[in-house]
Amino acid sequence: MDTVKRLELIRRNTEEIITEKELVDSIIKNKQMVVYWGTAPTGKPHAGYFFPMLKIADLLRAGFKVKILLADLHAALDNVKWSILEKRYNYYEKLIPLIIKAVGADTKNLKFVKGSDFQLKPEYMYDVLQMSSYASVHDTHKAASEVVKQGDNPRLSGLIYPIMQAIDEQYLGVDCQLGGSDQRKIMVLARENLPRLGYKERIEIIHPLIPSLLGGGKMSSSNEKGKIDLLDDEKTVEEKIKNAEMIAKDTNNGIMAFLKYVIFTVKSDNKEEFVIQRDKKFGGDIKFNNYEELEIEYKAGKIHPLDIKLAVARELNDLLSIFRKNKKILNKLAKEAYS
Amino acid sequence: MDTVKRLELIRRNTEEIITEKELVDSIIKNKQMVVYWGTAPTGKPHAGYFFPMLKIADLLRAGFKVKILLADLHAALDNVKWSILEKRYNYYEKLIPLIIKAVGADTKNLKFVKGSDFQLKPEYMYDVLQMSSYASVHDTHKAASEVVKQGDNPRLSGLIYPIMQAIDEQYLGVDCQLGGSDQRKIMVLARENLPRLGYKERIEIIHPLIPSLLGGGKMSSSNEKGKIDLLDDEKTVEEKIKNAEMIAKDTNNGIMAFLKYVIFTVKSDNKEEFVIQRDKKFGGDIKFNNYEELEIEYKAGKIHPLDIKLAVARELNDLLSIFRKNKKILNKLAKEAYS
Repeated sequence: MDTVKRLELIRRNTEEIITEKELVDSIIKNKQMVVYWGTAPTGKPHAGYFFPMLKIADLLRAGFKVKILLADLHAALDNVKWSILEKRYNYYEKLIPLIIKAVGADTKNLKFVKGSDFQLKPEYMYDVLQMSSYASVHDTHKAASEVVKQGDNPRLSGLIYPIMQAIDEQYLGVDCQLGGSDQRKIMVLARENLPRLGYKERIEIIHPLIPSLLGGGKMSSSNEKGKIDLLDDEKTVEEKIKNAEMIAKDTNNGIMAFLKYVIFTVKSDNKEEFVIQRDKKFGGDIKFNNYEELEIEYKAGKIHPLDIKLAVARELNDLLSIFRKNKKILNKLAKEAYS
Repeated sequence: MDTVKRLELIRRNTEEIITEKELVDSIIKNKQMVVYWGTAPTGKPHAGYFFPMLKIADLLRAGFKVKILLADLHAALDNVKWSILEKRYNYYEKLIPLIIKAVGADTKNLKFVKGSDFQLKPEYMYDVLQMSSYASVHDTHKAASEVVKQGDNPRLSGLIYPIMQAIDEQYLGVDCQLGGSDQRKIMVLARENLPRLGYKERIEIIHPLIPSLLGGGKMSSSNEKGKIDLLDDEKTVEEKIKNAEMIAKDTNNGIMAFLKYVIFTVKSDNKEEFVIQRDKKFGGDIKFNNYEELEIEYKAGKIHPLDIKLAVARELNDLLSIFRKNKKILNKLAKEAYS
């Protein structure tokens, strides 16, 4: 794959790359790059997870080695009970590979890593302590603010969280980190502080977040109605999407974001069209090759929100079929992890 | 030694024991108890260190096993540069045993432990993370406030400091911790949080702090004129003591505290009298068997501050002779650690 095509794939659907220059320099040198994406097994993964998995698929295709960090200790630092941690991990360990599979990524260069397998090593913790002596309470608090549930009386663990995420970049041996825009402040903290320990700063690839179906921020596992759980059944998915907030002509909502970042990415990768089924009396079916065309039509009021919703529900239900095939084991693990 | 005598020795010159009941219960059971006293190799140890060493001597005589923790990592958490840490440790490692020797403790049941030798173990750090998820930013900040130099923009390390001190109680396998009253909030934090990890709370033996010679708080290595450095020569000691703040009839000063807690303790243990030398025309020499008698005379204006000062300087110079005998190596190590 040529340099331009690789850069295009890496940049697709991203919000920011820190820094573009470092990325371009590395790609031009044709360096085999290693990137990591981390997830802490806190709440139940929802449909928003398709999006980073698609970015991972992009990076794999662009020639990256990818490590997925299942950050069990980070979950405990973010208020998951220590006693239930391993159960949460077990659920994520089963579920995340299925999301990868659902988006059809080539997993030859993909590796899973468990946080506690390396984060408790003496040299790792020595570096955590070292970085904690350079980073201020104020800065770590700010860095964690969009990631860790801090409440009125935040726990100390929430401030150690971003420090460990920074040290992860070093100990995972990566060149880049991929993460949502909520991670941005932690990534910047990492770039500021790794050089103080004599380590190089890493390239940060930042993707936007899929908004909640009900508006008011990102899709989050703690908002049941605003998210599609990966284990939701067909009817539930249809109901939730039907009830999602979506004002005619206005693209600023979770459905349109999901359509743009997830469904059209899958469709385009599979060289398929996105089909909106309509009764002949309402104009009949319409097909789109890309999101931009659909957006123009929608903004012009030529497509009814409900028609888009039904098409999205159909596509999403397709994507979710893999979880339904593994329903028994997933439900068992989910029950153990979230009861 | 009988129970009453043991309790008397343990309590001598303490400010508080948390809790008295737990201590008495353990002593009555005639349990062989283990206590630790920790010091982080930050500034240069000063004459105030004689006092906790005398308490350690008391505890050894009362049948305790004693561990002295040279908490190197804690020093780094309290703003000592990581690159100089080992040099600071080397200085303390040479110096502290000499202080013990100077006060004449029986060291058969005394052991030295280096913090980084056990604090980086996976199970230790797992517990640090665990406790950090129970303890709030607010509480750890408050706990550290009298121990760690925090400044306007405190580092995160200062909040990890008290958590590690709490976990030390568990991993040193002790029943009690001995510390100055500045440690009280950390000790209370430890007692609150160890049970959350399934560990027992420890007995805390708290001694008062020797005030600065110039007033305004404890004797501190960061206030050159307010402290006697253990390597100060005879003349310097005399000068500093002569210049110490001491108002006639007023016992509230560093000289009287040093006299009470250090010199009279040594004298009483050695069954010696404290002698104030005076010219015959000012009443001639006076001898005291205990501090209380001297205090009465002093409050009544019958002893001049300068006479006490000169006697204290003489006694202190005696205590410091051991460091002068080891001057060459101590000065070399000090130069490496503090240049």
